[in-house]
Amino acid sequence: MSAPSPLSASSAPIRFVKGHGTENDFVLLFDPERALDLTPRLVAAICDRRAGIGGDGVLRVVLAATDPEGASMSDRARWFMDYRNADGSIASMCGNGLRVFARYLVDNYLEPAGEFEVATRGGLMPVRLGAIGAVTVDMGRYQLPELPPLTVSANGRSWPATAVEMPNPHAVAVVDDLADAGELAEPPVVSPAGAFADGVNVEFVVAKDDRHLVMRVHERGVGETRSCGTGACAAAVVLTGGAPGSTVVDVPGGRLTVTIRPDRHVELTGPAVLLAAGELDPAALVGETAG
Amino acid sequence: MSAPSPLSASSAPIRFVKGHGTENDFVLLFDPERALDLTPRLVAAICDRRAGIGGDGVLRVVLAATDPEGASMSDRARWFMDYRNADGSIASMCGNGLRVFARYLVDNYLEPAGEFEVATRGGLMPVRLGAIGAVTVDMGRYQLPELPPLTVSANGRSWPATAVEMPNPHAVAVVDDLADAGELAEPPVVSPAGAFADGVNVEFVVAKDDRHLVMRVHERGVGETRSCGTGACAAAVVLTGGAPGSTVVDVPGGRLTVTIRPDRHVELTGPAVLLAAGELDPAALVGETAG
Repeated sequence: MSAPSPLSASSAPIRFVKGHGTENDFVLLFDPERALDLTPRLVAAICDRRAGIGGDGVLRVVLAATDPEGASMSDRARWFMDYRNADGSIASMCGNGLRVFARYLVDNYLEPAGEFEVATRGGLMPVRLGAIGAVTVDMGRYQLPELPPLTVSANGRSWPATAVEMPNPHAVAVVDDLADAGELAEPPVVSPAGAFADGVNVEFVVAKDDRHLVMRVHERGVGETRSCGTGACAAAVVLTGGAPGSTVVDVPGGRLTVTIRPDRHVELTGPAVLLAAGELDPAALVGETAG
Repeated sequence: MSAPSPLSASSAPIRFVKGHGTENDFVLLFDPERALDLTPRLVAAICDRRAGIGGDGVLRVVLAATDPEGASMSDRARWFMDYRNADGSIASMCGNGLRVFARYLVDNYLEPAGEFEVATRGGLMPVRLGAIGAVTVDMGRYQLPELPPLTVSANGRSWPATAVEMPNPHAVAVVDDLADAGELAEPPVVSPAGAFADGVNVEFVVAKDDRHLVMRVHERGVGETRSCGTGACAAAVVLTGGAPGSTVVDVPGGRLTVTIRPDRHVELTGPAVLLAAGELDPAALVGETAG
């Protein structure tokens, strides 16, 4: 059986792959020569969950040497991860997205399995993965900023919290029950109010044992999400006090492993699934969203 | 440039198309010989908006003669629309889905443009469409059941309502402002309580003029949706008192046109967009959801 071609021929199709890491999901666009006019409107249309493919963001796969932002890293990284948020805005880095990006490179023989670096707007990111299975990302060193004592409040309750930079800011609150934080329809309140000038991601953590935690995360500017790679790292740093070793972190979207190295680098290991591939009709997307 | 094959070779890929009608979205599976083992679990995994392609349901394209439920209609319809809800359960009919299904058939030369019938669990459904553009579905005759006076309540307010069968049950309330119904986080309450033993879909309607309305819909068992084909028909019947002619119906997901014929058949015309096509890796889907 051969299925017929289903898209209209009104415009050049765009090849895509859909993938996710612990249910943080992405549309990957293979565009090595940076030929695609990836406007914010096109990104938003692709990420629309009903009138598009749907995703938390777009990961464009570009040769680093071809990309203005990637070129300076092209001596060490062959590929640049051009990451865009679902609203079309530019984003710097995403631990879950980088796993999916690295899995795409290896599955498509664009990099060999093993260790290599990926160029991102957050700098060169080392990754490690086999021919199949989980992907490990070196997320860099954690920092414990010196701040006055923090309090996180949600659902009419308050908890002391610990600040961690990964390097983005996190406030980690250890709670008795993840339900205590309520529905998180509103962002948790972190005090003192001036502690995080640009906002903060908030993790609610329950310790299962010394090396196993479950958590929820509220990402600044986004809301509660199924997973947050830097948030998982921050939570593990708080649970262990930064002691070297591995911690299992269960997020709503799945299971991650965070390994703190003696040099204070934090490695994040987790699943990266490529589940579909095909072609998008950009006219069907943009035409519809313009309607 | 040729993009590499992105999916793992761990299982036979499933070809899919994603489409939507007024943002009621579907994953179409071309399976003429009914070879696919379309389990509820597989449907739910495909419709998962993060770990799958995402959709309100699956539309399997099956030769009517091949399908146990379609065979009796195969003298008049070549294709059977095997419609499944996103949770994997069996569904009978969906006006928005049928438009998308018909557009798929014509775009892929499986039916010629013009008029033809599609076999569904709700019976034979006549459709009419050109080589491009909107699709018209004959939704059948409306009925005005004899019921005691109805009241719909939501957000602490109440309105008189009119019952319409399309043939599924609707209660249509004319309101001053669509915001009056509030967030509809809970189903609207329809009284008297026993009027609809199996629940009812509720439409909130604002009349823009004699032949133009805007509406919101709460579908029984689902919640508020972006569009509901039978709900649009029911709303137009109430606005016009069933008088023959066409009414423009704006739903949150786009614009529909409802035409009431002198024989009380209701025709629903609206967009049907096929936006992407490709292959799914069922092992990546089901493997992940099992995890």
